[in-house]
Formats: sequence, C-alpha cells, structure tokens
Amino acid sequence: MQIFKEKALLTAYLKTIWDKNCAIGFIPTMGALHQGHLSLIKKSILNNDYNVVSIFVNPTQFNNSQDLEKYPRTLERDIEKIKTVCPGCIVFAPSVDDIYEGKTNSISFNYDGIENEMEGKHRPGHFDGVGTIVKKLFEIVQPTNAYFGEKDFQQLQIVKKLVSKNNLKVNIVGCPIFREENGLAMSSRNERLSKTDREEASIIYKTLVTAKEKFGTKSAKEVTKWIENSFKKNKNITLEYFEIAEETTLKTCNRKSKNKKYRAFIAVFIDNIRLIDNISLN
Amino acid sequence: MQIFKEKALLTAYLKTIWDKNCAIGFIPTMGALHQGHLSLIKKSILNNDYNVVSIFVNPTQFNNSQDLEKYPRTLERDIEKIKTVCPGCIVFAPSVDDIYEGKTNSISFNYDGIENEMEGKHRPGHFDGVGTIVKKLFEIVQPTNAYFGEKDFQQLQIVKKLVSKNNLKVNIVGCPIFREENGLAMSSRNERLSKTDREEASIIYKTLVTAKEKFGTKSAKEVTKWIENSFKKNKNITLEYFEIAEETTLKTCNRKSKNKKYRAFIAVFIDNIRLIDNISLN
Repeated sequence: MQIFKEKALLTAYLKTIWDKNCAIGFIPTMGALHQGHLSLIKKSILNNDYNVVSIFVNPTQFNNSQDLEKYPRTLERDIEKIKTVCPGCIVFAPSVDDIYEGKTNSISFNYDGIENEMEGKHRPGHFDGVGTIVKKLFEIVQPTNAYFGEKDFQQLQIVKKLVSKNNLKVNIVGCPIFREENGLAMSSRNERLSKTDREEASIIYKTLVTAKEKFGTKSAKEVTKWIENSFKKNKNITLEYFEIAEETTLKTCNRKSKNKKYRAFIAVFIDNIRLIDNISLN
Repeated sequence: MQIFKEKALLTAYLKTIWDKNCAIGFIPTMGALHQGHLSLIKKSILNNDYNVVSIFVNPTQFNNSQDLEKYPRTLERDIEKIKTVCPGCIVFAPSVDDIYEGKTNSISFNYDGIENEMEGKHRPGHFDGVGTIVKKLFEIVQPTNAYFGEKDFQQLQIVKKLVSKNNLKVNIVGCPIFREENGLAMSSRNERLSKTDREEASIIYKTLVTAKEKFGTKSAKEVTKWIENSFKKNKNITLEYFEIAEETTLKTCNRKSKNKKYRAFIAVFIDNIRLIDNISLN
C-alpha cells in the first residue's frame, strides 16, 4: 500500500501509471470509512488495474462550521480498513493547504439547475464545494472510473453533470446504498449518534419504504403530506424535507409519468445530527 | 512598454507590483484593436497605477471554426495603437499553448441561466469559453479593475456573474459602446466588411434607435414583430435575432415594469459576417 500526503508526490508516482495506459479506479472519500465506502473500493478493484482512495475532509462543502469541526477524522483506522479489502491500494490523504494552496474558494459550476433542489436549497454553497473538490481531485488523479455512493444521490447527479458539461474524461459509477441491519443508510455521521438515536433512526428507511408503497396509488403531494404529518408527532426526529422527484432533473413531481424514473428523498435531524437517505420508486 | 508572451514571465514581473498594493487595471482583448478598445484603456489609466492589456484570440469561445480562423490578427499594429494612448502599458500576448497547456477545454460555470439567452442560444459553448479564459486571465493578472465594453452586453453580465458567484476579487467596469460615424458599433469583425457592407450595416443602429422610440407605446412583442418584418425585405442583411430583455436576467420581457432596466439586442449577418449591437431602453 502506498500512502501519499502531498499531491506533488502522488502525481509523480501516478505518472508512471498514466504512461502505461492502465485503468485507474478512484474512490474519493472524506474518511471515517464504513462498509458503504468499502463496497465502492471492492467495485473499483473488479474493473481497474490501480485503485486510488482519497481521504480528505473538504472544508468548502460544509455550510455549517460546527458540522465541519465535528466531522470524524480517523485516518489510521481508515487505512487499516482499506488494507482489509485492497492491500495494493494507493491512498491519498492531503492537507487542506496542499489542495487549496491558501485559497479555500469554491467554484460555482453550471449544473443546469439541479444544484438548486433539495440539498442545494438546504445547504447553500454545498454543491459548489463538492464540484470544486471533485474537479480538483480528478485533475490530480486523472482516473478512468470514479465511484460514488447513491446515498448522496443528488451529489452523484451533480458529479455526472460536472463531467458531461465540462467534457471531463472519467466514467462516473453510482453504487447502491449500504445499510445497517435496521435499514439505516451507512454514513460517517452515524458515528456521532447515540445507541438509542441509531435505533430510532431506523424510521428513516421505514418511511421511505412506506412512501414507495403509497406512491402510485397516491400522488406525490399526498404521500409528502402524510409523511410530514407523521414526523410532526415524532419528538426526537425533525424532518427537514421529504420530496419525490424525477431522477435526472431532481425536480419535484406529482404523478408518475411513463419512461421516467423517480426517487423519494429525505433529510432529518436527530440530536442535531443531519442524516439523509433516498429510495428508488421504480 | 513591457510586452510579455509567456504567463510565467508576466507573473514574475507582476509580483513586484502586487507586493506594492497598487491598483492594476486590466483590459482583456482579442486584438484587432479599435477606438472602442482604446476607450477602455483610457478609462483604465484614469483609475489605476498599472494597466495590463491582453491580446489573445481565445479558441474556446468560438463555436464556428471559420470565424476563429478568419478573426483578424494584427499584433504589431495593436501594440502601436496601445502606445498612442498608454506608453507605459503592460501588454500580455500569450500563445494558445501557454494559456491552455495542451488542454483547450472550457469550463461550464454557473451563470444563473443568463448563459442560455440570446448569444448563448445562438453560439453554443460560447460563454463557457468566455468564462474559462476570463477566469484564467484574472488568475494570471490578479487585477483590481477589469474593463469590458457594453457592445458585448451579455458577456459583461456573464463576467459579472462569474465574479459574484465565485467571489473573485476584481471590480468589473462596463464601458459604453463606441460607434463609427454612421452609428455602426465598433467591432474587430468590422474589418472584414466591404465598404458597401459597412455603409449598409448602419441600419443596425438605426433599427435599435427606432425600437427605443417605439417601445413604451408599443409592447416588446409588437416592436420585435415590426423589426423582424422590416428585415425580411432586406436582401443583404439577415436578422438572427432581435430581443427586448431585462438587463440583469436577460430574459425577454413584454411590457415595461417600473424599477427595471431594459435593453434591445440584435444580431445580424452581412455577407456571412456576424455583427451584434444593443441599446438601453431607459
């Protein structure tokens, strides 16, 4: 396993690989790795000659400084976890200064408006930060394939848009959500939940499954209303949003139309910890 | 006068100026300078300690390869013209390779939709190219103030949006259109017009002035219809578009509303040469 903490050293090493014309798989992460991340690495191994995992808590995508501060940082443990699934992995764990060179500005790319929906609405500047770091990392790593989890489904669509609108030469692979036994979507933020919170959080996925059952006979509006009401009774979990949207535009829809794919999206707060999840409705 | 043909040499020189905390005025051009450009330089001299003029025909903003090929390139003459108004000017005339380093990709920035109107609609990818080169040049020159002509009014709004959405530290100054005696807006492309074409092209400005007179008593739709009809009778000039739009969003409007500013925009072809112009309706 090779570990690089500076982009200059990583690219010097990668140069020998680029020249060979091999496939490079890239899994960008913010660390605090869980089974979801490891499933992305496993998928990458199957289709690439070299695999690069980056571990970098990107400051420009946090709209909330407390969230940035409290985001778990567990580099040594992360490296051990990567070793278990990919001993030959190339790990890139740079500092903020190495990446941003003193200017932690984010760039506002064109995402055809999908940046204004859901997460974009509730986390101002978030997707500018995501696009900025993803483009920077793509330029450093120059991967053939890059792997993103569907838990952050809107982020996956944002990255796809970034690639298509800017003709970046990388294939984006979306990977299914990895869930804990009680259905809770794996997330680094889960580490901050108490044991009770973690049990209660299983309601998120249960809600999505119920929404999926109801959608079709009921309209998106009716399903949404029903879910908003059900959360009003919940003392420990605050619903930030629930939306049923078309998969590519992420615009709220009302009734199903043929040939289109829909998803239900949810964001909640438990004990000041923000969790998101989504489910395909097709 | 200092002339630099490589960005590394320019920035080495500018470093001594940045340290002094002086105001740097920047006039990005594609060369083939005319009185309009010189008026921007004159404006810059008044408000800055140093003045940088770039001369660079940017390939990524041309959607038409013939237009790129035929774009006039007159570096020696341009330098002589700059000398007449600003003998102490810093001129930056880099090669395409020096600027793009082998990758002539353009970046699709977020302009809140104004990139989809008028010029954006008729010149696919044009504003991606404009934003890409302007951001690159701002990063190289790091100017205090940058000057853009209102002839390319939509471009001016695009640059303002680029700056505001990406928190770039530069003040954008829009400067009025410079016209030939017959009213034709100064443009480097005018050099390609025959003498007769140049005379006929005076109809463009006359049309805008008439539009201004009519708008207010007539709706935007009526004015547009009238202008479209009048060009149908013209054998030598083909109208590409005429639009009356609100100044900040550049969305077509119908009737005037208070507290908003409007402009009429026009694009025509004369002998395969594309010319644009606009006029304030307030």
